Amino acid sequence: MKKFALLSVSDKAGIVEFAKGLVEAGFGILSTGGTFKLLRESGVDATEVSAHTGFSEMMDGRVKTLHPKIHGGILGRRGTDDAVMNEHGIDRIDIVAVNLYPFAATVAKPNVSMSDAIENIDIGGPAMVRSAAKNHAHVGIITSPADYERVLGEIRSTGEISYATRFDLAVKAFEHTAGYDGMIASFFGARLNENATAPSEDSTPTTDFARTFNVQLHKTQELRYGENPHQKAAFYVENGAKEASVSTAQQLQGKELSYNNIADTDAALECVKSFVEPACVIVKHANPCGVAVADDILSAYDLAYQTDPESAFGGIIAFNRELDTATAAAIVERQFVEVIIAPSVADGVLEITGAKKNVRVLVCGELPNPSERATQLDYKRVNGGLLVQDQDLGMIDVSDLRVVTERAPSEAELEDLLFAWKVAKYVKSNAIVYAKNRQTVGVGAGQMSRVNSARIAAIKAEHAGLAVEGAVMASDAFFPFRDGIDNAAKAGIKCIIQPGGSMRDDETIAAANEHGIAMVFTGMRHFRH
Amino acid sequence: MKKFALLSVSDKAGIVEFAKGLVEAGFGILSTGGTFKLLRESGVDATEVSAHTGFSEMMDGRVKTLHPKIHGGILGRRGTDDAVMNEHGIDRIDIVAVNLYPFAATVAKPNVSMSDAIENIDIGGPAMVRSAAKNHAHVGIITSPADYERVLGEIRSTGEISYATRFDLAVKAFEHTAGYDGMIASFFGARLNENATAPSEDSTPTTDFARTFNVQLHKTQELRYGENPHQKAAFYVENGAKEASVSTAQQLQGKELSYNNIADTDAALECVKSFVEPACVIVKHANPCGVAVADDILSAYDLAYQTDPESAFGGIIAFNRELDTATAAAIVERQFVEVIIAPSVADGVLEITGAKKNVRVLVCGELPNPSERATQLDYKRVNGGLLVQDQDLGMIDVSDLRVVTERAPSEAELEDLLFAWKVAKYVKSNAIVYAKNRQTVGVGAGQMSRVNSARIAAIKAEHAGLAVEGAVMASDAFFPFRDGIDNAAKAGIKCIIQPGGSMRDDETIAAANEHGIAMVFTGMRHFRH
Repeated sequence: MKKFALLSVSDKAGIVEFAKGLVEAGFGILSTGGTFKLLRESGVDATEVSAHTGFSEMMDGRVKTLHPKIHGGILGRRGTDDAVMNEHGIDRIDIVAVNLYPFAATVAKPNVSMSDAIENIDIGGPAMVRSAAKNHAHVGIITSPADYERVLGEIRSTGEISYATRFDLAVKAFEHTAGYDGMIASFFGARLNENATAPSEDSTPTTDFARTFNVQLHKTQELRYGENPHQKAAFYVENGAKEASVSTAQQLQGKELSYNNIADTDAALECVKSFVEPACVIVKHANPCGVAVADDILSAYDLAYQTDPESAFGGIIAFNRELDTATAAAIVERQFVEVIIAPSVADGVLEITGAKKNVRVLVCGELPNPSERATQLDYKRVNGGLLVQDQDLGMIDVSDLRVVTERAPSEAELEDLLFAWKVAKYVKSNAIVYAKNRQTVGVGAGQMSRVNSARIAAIKAEHAGLAVEGAVMASDAFFPFRDGIDNAAKAGIKCIIQPGGSMRDDETIAAANEHGIAMVFTGMRHFRH
Repeated sequence: MKKFALLSVSDKAGIVEFAKGLVEAGFGILSTGGTFKLLRESGVDATEVSAHTGFSEMMDGRVKTLHPKIHGGILGRRGTDDAVMNEHGIDRIDIVAVNLYPFAATVAKPNVSMSDAIENIDIGGPAMVRSAAKNHAHVGIITSPADYERVLGEIRSTGEISYATRFDLAVKAFEHTAGYDGMIASFFGARLNENATAPSEDSTPTTDFARTFNVQLHKTQELRYGENPHQKAAFYVENGAKEASVSTAQQLQGKELSYNNIADTDAALECVKSFVEPACVIVKHANPCGVAVADDILSAYDLAYQTDPESAFGGIIAFNRELDTATAAAIVERQFVEVIIAPSVADGVLEITGAKKNVRVLVCGELPNPSERATQLDYKRVNGGLLVQDQDLGMIDVSDLRVVTERAPSEAELEDLLFAWKVAKYVKSNAIVYAKNRQTVGVGAGQMSRVNSARIAAIKAEHAGLAVEGAVMASDAFFPFRDGIDNAAKAGIKCIIQPGGSMRDDETIAAANEHGIAMVFTGMRHFRH
């Protein structure tokens, strides 16, 4: 009995060569629409599906392949269903190559209409993909051009596609259809309109959050364990993530990243993205323990390290400039480091870092301009559910600051205020950051009361031998009482940046004025938990 | 022209009444398999799909509805495609009621074979669901029995299903198919086997983490804002979550929960689940700031509050027993509270809490036995990806403890050690917990160095006026140096629980012995970031 391959693809890359290979291997080719046209023009002897079924394509292509001769040919159990296939003149279709029109690309177009979006929902394609995947015991389903070569190779050498490959391809097929329908559900689910009495052509979302949250992520690594050794874990990434991140980064050196490495590298890299000038961020236990901006990254690293050498031990270090040999040497000579991440590394760096055992070196490519980042979604897991929110990309500049005290900050103080503010955004709440000359001099993180975070920042500065006198202080949220200001004054703080907005702002401002402190309000809070 | 409704459901609840209502409204009924049988037995005049198409069902039902007369009848654009429908004798199918065999239920069965799982992949059903959803301009697609009444009601009163309802149902349909294929992709994706040369009947997973992570969650609330006012946010929950959690809890009183309320309520409730005896946990900024176990929850609350009254202000309070009126009164008289959550509330509680503005009261139902909890997945978002791990349900009891010092803990100390250990698990790392008589006396959270967390715990105890003398200390991870032990001894700590496992355990043990401290190792770490 004649064996067929059915080819009907949106992504036409490699399809002609694949078809030719299949013809050589003795397959008859069935095809539809644009694929059929391309194959015939390329000299491939293909039969149109409508000719095969005897049922002409209708409704502008809405119903082409939804026919027993097609689905019976795909779904028939070889051996079991041979008689019924013969009876109905159903030929075996042993290979199905179908990929779906990228719905995401359609709806990403500006001004896409609702009817455009709806028309681009593929019906026949997913049905064939799913039929073939279900019957992977007998049928090979190829949804990605990347698999053509592998399939042809197996057919050429053994005459068939191996079971392992057919099963792998079937899983890919269901991944493809799951992702596809997830996109459709999310797109239309954000456009529900309770009052609609007629189809609207306007595809403007009615909500920022669709009724269901559908996500598909791809495993890049099974981890040795999770946050703790008794927890199993894996790392999944988005397909096609554009912005440089820990998920897109390439590891050039060192042993496998751990769960905590990945989380901390993310924290360090996201923080260092805030700075335009050369910067260094050292993270430990999800918090920046030292941050600095300088004329070059070696100086920035030196300053960041000084903030808290104790915590920097075994830390994660991120830069927003190419890692040079001098900086690499300074790090590995001075401290134990888990991960170094930078946009790129200079020649010779890997020789230096490679001399120390286990230093992981990652490159992530060019970082985005801090003021031009596209919003991603942030997730926080709770038992039984998920909090979904916009990533915190809130930014302020000098023009957003409101001076609320008698004394206004100097130019140098302003620079330190904005520096400290950017750091505070990445410190776990309650966050208090002391800084001077674009160097953190004390970081108070993760406390349940603001005054304790301030205490810790002071303790850390003292511990590191860094003078607080003349430093600025950033607070990620407002001060509920004046004691935070009084304590800061005692420590030597001369300038404060905070959101403002407390019922007792008046008391806080009065306290600052009493101490000769200059204070500015940002109007923006940066809780991070 | 005759209008048809096609009914083919796995969940047969309400289908007979729905069919009867449709017949009354003038619809012809098409059906298949078990649904057809049930309808006929119930006296509904239904036509079998095979009789309608003239193509007999074949391959044990694999190909029933994949036919142009069915899909043309669903997909035909009324007005545009009438001529071609007439030409081919295709009747309009204006209503499709299809729900899919619950794949999750199939694969949840013990010893399900691979061929069972594969055979239970529905092909014809999703094709009809998707066809009808695409053509929602003309067709109503009902995938849940919960929608029958609404659809019949509209048909009875207006003769048709409104556009708004059809669109809503279409979105539900794609949600249904997306969730369905996500389950299939995840199930088979965890059973890939590179070396398989033949189909394996053994459905044991080859990995804990499927190649793709597919999740579908359902929106329960759009939030006023996210972690900060400039971030948009929504709360999504799992369908069918069984364990009592913030996601399944019911709000009885107070204004809408905020993003931070939900996150903190989760932290408080998960921590209080650790205790069998009456317990209270107060959370602020994602950390327990006071925890206690006592003979009743009023005493537990009093003790938990004492640990850190400053932080308890505006906190979240969780109990593992019914909230009684005396405890409710004690809370609202003493402090500002954002959320109170308990398995249930006694009569009269809401009158007491309702007297204070804005107190949110939640009930979550009976809490699971701490040692019988089913593992859920925990997620940590990083830019461009997701870390997926088992929830930290690691538990130890007295028999797991290894006494490493000359002095062994007393019975009372052992009780406090295990209490402090359970608390430390829910404190952000590095976590140090001081406790005495099953009350936290100081919580040191979220520090980049362990010695600082210990300092903070001591500062907090002093601030609250609680004596550290004779208290125990829990550390979520090992002490890298002996200074942590020396400082603890100075503060008055007499007993320590920690995982052990440092290269310098010997030094730490020696330090403990010098100070007459009893120390036990758990062998289990509890980082939480």
